[in-house]
Amino acid sequence: MFFRKDFTMKKVILSLDTGIDDAMALAYTIAKDELDLIGVVGTYGNVYTEQGAKNALALLQMLGKTDIPVFLGNNHAIDQDHFDRMEVSADIHGENGIGQVSIPAATRQVETTSGIDFIIEATKKYGKDLLVIATGPMTDLALVLQKYPAFKDEIGQVVIMGGALTVRGNVSPYAEANINQDPLAAKILFESGTPVIMVGLDVTMKTPIGLADTQKWRETQTTVGEKYADIVDYYIHIYDKYSPYLHGGSLHDPAAVCAAIHPEWFTFLPMHLTCETEGPSRGRTIGRLEDLRKAKPNVKVAIDINADKVSHDICDSLEELFKK
Amino acid sequence: MFFRKDFTMKKVILSLDTGIDDAMALAYTIAKDELDLIGVVGTYGNVYTEQGAKNALALLQMLGKTDIPVFLGNNHAIDQDHFDRMEVSADIHGENGIGQVSIPAATRQVETTSGIDFIIEATKKYGKDLLVIATGPMTDLALVLQKYPAFKDEIGQVVIMGGALTVRGNVSPYAEANINQDPLAAKILFESGTPVIMVGLDVTMKTPIGLADTQKWRETQTTVGEKYADIVDYYIHIYDKYSPYLHGGSLHDPAAVCAAIHPEWFTFLPMHLTCETEGPSRGRTIGRLEDLRKAKPNVKVAIDINADKVSHDICDSLEELFKK
Repeated sequence: MFFRKDFTMKKVILSLDTGIDDAMALAYTIAKDELDLIGVVGTYGNVYTEQGAKNALALLQMLGKTDIPVFLGNNHAIDQDHFDRMEVSADIHGENGIGQVSIPAATRQVETTSGIDFIIEATKKYGKDLLVIATGPMTDLALVLQKYPAFKDEIGQVVIMGGALTVRGNVSPYAEANINQDPLAAKILFESGTPVIMVGLDVTMKTPIGLADTQKWRETQTTVGEKYADIVDYYIHIYDKYSPYLHGGSLHDPAAVCAAIHPEWFTFLPMHLTCETEGPSRGRTIGRLEDLRKAKPNVKVAIDINADKVSHDICDSLEELFKK
Repeated sequence: MFFRKDFTMKKVILSLDTGIDDAMALAYTIAKDELDLIGVVGTYGNVYTEQGAKNALALLQMLGKTDIPVFLGNNHAIDQDHFDRMEVSADIHGENGIGQVSIPAATRQVETTSGIDFIIEATKKYGKDLLVIATGPMTDLALVLQKYPAFKDEIGQVVIMGGALTVRGNVSPYAEANINQDPLAAKILFESGTPVIMVGLDVTMKTPIGLADTQKWRETQTTVGEKYADIVDYYIHIYDKYSPYLHGGSLHDPAAVCAAIHPEWFTFLPMHLTCETEGPSRGRTIGRLEDLRKAKPNVKVAIDINADKVSHDICDSLEELFKK
């Protein structure tokens, strides 16, 4: 059995490019008793690395979790020397990454240890009890694998939000945004032998969030509830502009967290996945024909979801958290 | 419920571009008590339409089924005015389509009614009791839909061998051979509302056939067993050249027949499938992001298979048939 069965692992590292749906993934992770968040690694994507880390720190403070450290990951793809934020990212997440909503900056500073080293040290310490959930590009995980190859055998589980297997991509007909930032990193991760669960557009686009959901957060009459409602409303409104056919925002990043807690709400296809790094379909996550008869699939891809259960659990858990 | 549950329908039309694996699909259909083959429509693809129909007639005669009529389908894609056989087709199936093996030409002639009209008349007559299994391009089914749109509501089930959802294609990184011949026809079929089951490379490449299997046919010491063994051995040898990593031929077309009889050996993903008709990924079978939250999926895609059961059932059923 390639995929480890003990899904209710306690220790969690989030790799976030915070980002509105990252902000929801962060709150959802904190809300769930099954998960013990030990740190956040800020990466680039929806925002620049520094902004994302700053956002994560500020959100953690607002959520009363000033004990959780935030580290910096790499600030560009492994085969690039810089990163330019896409215009569409500023559009969807707001210039500041959290829907142009103002929240107090954190008192706590970003850690000086690198995010890559933090993941490696945590892997050595917690091993199979450690879960890494990555909702940005796979760059930091590829760097972890390059620096500490034993990661693939020692880590409990990696869950990623990224990719598109059975549907077209959202930044090209082939590529989903996170994977598109660093296809080579995704390829390295997939082909490494690390136990990976991919939660991509195939399922995350099925999990809506609407204004009625955020209204319940607002009705908690707490600062954090109201701020999160403001942040996510921005996202819902921009989704109405980009994807009116969806009738709501998509719970991309929190759905990946949910897959780690409630795998029973997902249908997974274990397969030999790779990521294309060249040509028109750069960033395409797809199976290798050559491997179809091979044993030991390398990735478990979520291909279907109980969208009702997942959406409700995320929205309800955040409401409960904000009430506290 | 979109997909009709009565999989054990009796009346079957095969749309074949015969073709070695088509020859196996033909024998397998005849071998199975659950299926009552009422006619074959010859199409282009592995071979030219006329050659395919001639092969089907000759195989039917060898199988003692001279009562089954063979019709001619269209001889090129709906948006083309001719068809040029690909070199690789002659390579894989032999110049004559059946592995350069000589079998007696049929006494029976090809029908004068067109294959399209035959499918339409049979649909009117048998309706929900009719199953069409198409293992070549989707051209004839698209023409049926254009001439008789009620086909989509009246037909029991269409099962196709074609497409590649979770893996790369076999004639391009995006397209599988049958779909590649006529992507527009595939798109018309998928988007028509016809109940379609797609059995593509995702699963057919998992079902091997090797020389040990054909040896059992040879050991029936019947002409038909020996001829089929010769035909399929050609295919197995050519697979060793093209796809040595597979260690055997692939039971593409008979796997589609099997999906109609033994759906319990397959995992299906109901989804909104389309086929790309332009650009580098012409012929790609993929889900539409816009439809992810829509009800009524239009195609049920086979994404996993109990390859052992399917391979054995096909090989064993043919052995039994040849013994008779």
